[in-house]
Amino acid sequence: MHGPIIRLVMDDANAAFVSVIGRYACRVEWGDCDPAGIIFYPTYFRWMDAASWAFLEFAGYDARRMRAEHLAMPLVSANCEFLFPAQQADRCEVRSRIARFGGKSFLVEHEIVRSDGTALARGSETRVWGRFESGPGSPLKGEPIPESLKAKFRAP
Amino acid sequence: MHGPIIRLVMDDANAAFVSVIGRYACRVEWGDCDPAGIIFYPTYFRWMDAASWAFLEFAGYDARRMRAEHLAMPLVSANCEFLFPAQQADRCEVRSRIARFGGKSFLVEHEIVRSDGTALARGSETRVWGRFESGPGSPLKGEPIPESLKAKFRAP
Amino acid sequence: MHGPIIRLVMDDANAAFVSVIGRYACRVEWGDCDPAGIIFYPTYFRWMDAASWAFLEFAGYDARRMRAEHLAMPLVSANCEFLFPAQQADRCEVRSRIARFGGKSFLVEHEIVRSDGTALARGSETRVWGRFESGPGSPLKGEPIPESLKAKFRAP
Amino acid sequence: MHGPIIRLVMDDANAAFVSVIGRYACRVEWGDCDPAGIIFYPTYFRWMDAASWAFLEFAGYDARRMRAEHLAMPLVSANCEFLFPAQQADRCEVRSRIARFGGKSFLVEHEIVRSDGTALARGSETRVWGRFESGPGSPLKGEPIPESLKAKFRAP
Repeated sequence: MHGPIIRLVMDDANAAFVSVIGRYACRVEWGDCDPAGIIFYPTYFRWMDAASWAFLEFAGYDARRMRAEHLAMPLVSANCEFLFPAQQADRCEVRSRIARFGGKSFLVEHEIVRSDGTALARGSETRVWGRFESGPGSPLKGEPIPESLKAKFRAP
Repeated sequence: MHGPIIRLVMDDANAAFVSVIGRYACRVEWGDCDPAGIIFYPTYFRWMDAASWAFLEFAGYDARRMRAEHLAMPLVSANCEFLFPAQQADRCEVRSRIARFGGKSFLVEHEIVRSDGTALARGSETRVWGRFESGPGSPLKGEPIPESLKAKFRAP
Repeated sequence: MHGPIIRLVMDDANAAFVSVIGRYACRVEWGDCDPAGIIFYPTYFRWMDAASWAFLEFAGYDARRMRAEHLAMPLVSANCEFLFPAQQADRCEVRSRIARFGGKSFLVEHEIVRSDGTALARGSETRVWGRFESGPGSPLKGEPIPESLKAKFRAP
Repeated sequence: MHGPIIRLVMDDANAAFVSVIGRYACRVEWGDCDPAGIIFYPTYFRWMDAASWAFLEFAGYDARRMRAEHLAMPLVSANCEFLFPAQQADRCEVRSRIARFGGKSFLVEHEIVRSDGTALARGSETRVWGRFESGPGSPLKGEPIPESLKAKFRAP
């Protein structure tokens, strides 16, 4: 479905990647909902972003390390399909997997599932693996994704 | 690019629609930016949502009327490509157009442009035209989009 | 410190209230931080709001019941002191207590503590106990806080 | 009302300051509102923060300069009274003034007014004037507020 974007980005893409699954717990709060009484959709993107950071942490790249090594993972694109409306107090889990690794970019697929198993949303983010030239706020350049990082996400 | 989603939704889709262009002014604030010093990407979706509401207002459906008539326009899907990183204080404009009208749904395309003409992002939202059964918070049902509404968006 | 506000609101205030303590877990995410690399301060208010809802849930008033009974708890005022800057990935807890019950209003005090015990912020919210005249979106009127509700928050 | 906080911070405070008034235009969006159909209160703090940045810009310290000179203005405390509930599409203005300058800190008072003149909220922020030791993300130290900056805010 996102072929054109991926083709631009994943110049030297590997074949599809068999990923471990990250799990990020969240909850729909009052302030996440709109006057229709359901989740305001950008909330899902906030969660997907947080889930990606948590997924990286799982792979040994926690926030502290990312900061210390001047690493970041800016977005190329993001999308989401909204399957079922979430309401305040719904407990959810974002289940993330790496769908593809390119040379300097990667595709994270997320599924947001309510505690009763209902799939609420399904989305993905294409991100670049990058480094600030001289600390946060300075220009960011894409870098080859370390093989050791890819290995962390590979399902056994 | 989003053909599969559209095909599911736009059961009785018209041909591509020649739309007027809505303009929604916004500005990147300190709190819209992340530790990389650039815009936190869900901000673009917040803007796209606000731009869609402003576009509806332009067509005679302002917030007050939407509320009074129990109308809403929930999302089926949304996506965005991030072309250039925005920074605090950047003045921007979301330029919106209706790309397609289906029977009960519609596709809004948004381009986010910085005041110097730089395209920052390009996205779209697929929305349903719906009505709450009995006021906000009650279930929402899709409704045929009035021809009079479509006419408002048609470029002369 | 908030005497003047409280005096206006707590017309028929009880003496200071000895409250149980609510605990709401949260985490500083990338998107909660600003270009200074620390938490963007309105995030604390988002947390305090969510903590208040969780505290009400603990007392038997979960989101579903609040909706069904057309109850809400709008704000009269809110304030926060920022003691120590939080960073991405900090795990925190909002510790909430009812500092006072008035006839139709109440004061919730919150302390935000990092997992290592560091106090990050300290704030409070003055809220009204109210009911929508005819469902969400309709006008909201203050109501006497049920004694049974107050009892739930009283420390044994 | 905020005496105790101010007294701690404004060690070498001047007498009350007669300030010019900053004006920051904003609008209540769909996503700024909660299931009660009114503004979610942390939105006011987002606006107050943005209004403070715009006020600094007016005084010659725009975002670019703040970044280049490694300046920031972290919060000591913030508070807000909510006077009247705002709804989607309300056009508002944040009117800001400097209430006091201390040696390294200052107090900004904000009034949020709807386009028809209704006062919606009234709040304040106590901020420190600070500089990052070595760029964004590094520790931040308070600095004496330049007299030239104070002069910009003084009403003629």
